[in-house]
Amino acid sequence: MSGKAIFYHAGCPVCVSAEHGIANALDRSRYDVEIVHLGEDKSRITQAEAIGVKSVPALVLDDTVFHINFGADIADLK
Amino acid sequence: MSGKAIFYHAGCPVCVSAEHGIANALDRSRYDVEIVHLGEDKSRITQAEAIGVKSVPALVLDDTVFHINFGADIADLK
Repeated sequence: MSGKAIFYHAGCPVCVSAEHGIANALDRSRYDVEIVHLGEDKSRITQAEAIGVKSVPALVLDDTVFHINFGADIADLK
Repeated sequence: MSGKAIFYHAGCPVCVSAEHGIANALDRSRYDVEIVHLGEDKSRITQAEAIGVKSVPALVLDDTVFHINFGADIADLK
């Protein structure tokens, strides 16, 4: 295990597509993958924003943020 | 091997970051990963557009397009 991956989403169709695609395609032998639903777990929004997440779905790999397509602005999840 | 992944990029800094992050984090035991530099291989632009790629970097997983952050519009690569 060499890395940490956090997939932030909000349950939107774009998010589900990205989760089924990219999040599930990651190499689990190298990445500890955590899936966070910011719509249901609003306590994690502050952390996501601190890392640099602007919209969901987003994949954070070892503190580097990758915004995937566009589902929702993180500000709209509060 | 269950899937086909194509990572389209154009050598821009955003592209390189995404390639080092997401493309390299994919499970190579399940995905055949191809890296295509559209700036150097313009003959692939038509194919990318046909799949639905609008900008780079983009990751196509089994015909589903995921645009990652934003580096360049594909129209600007022609």
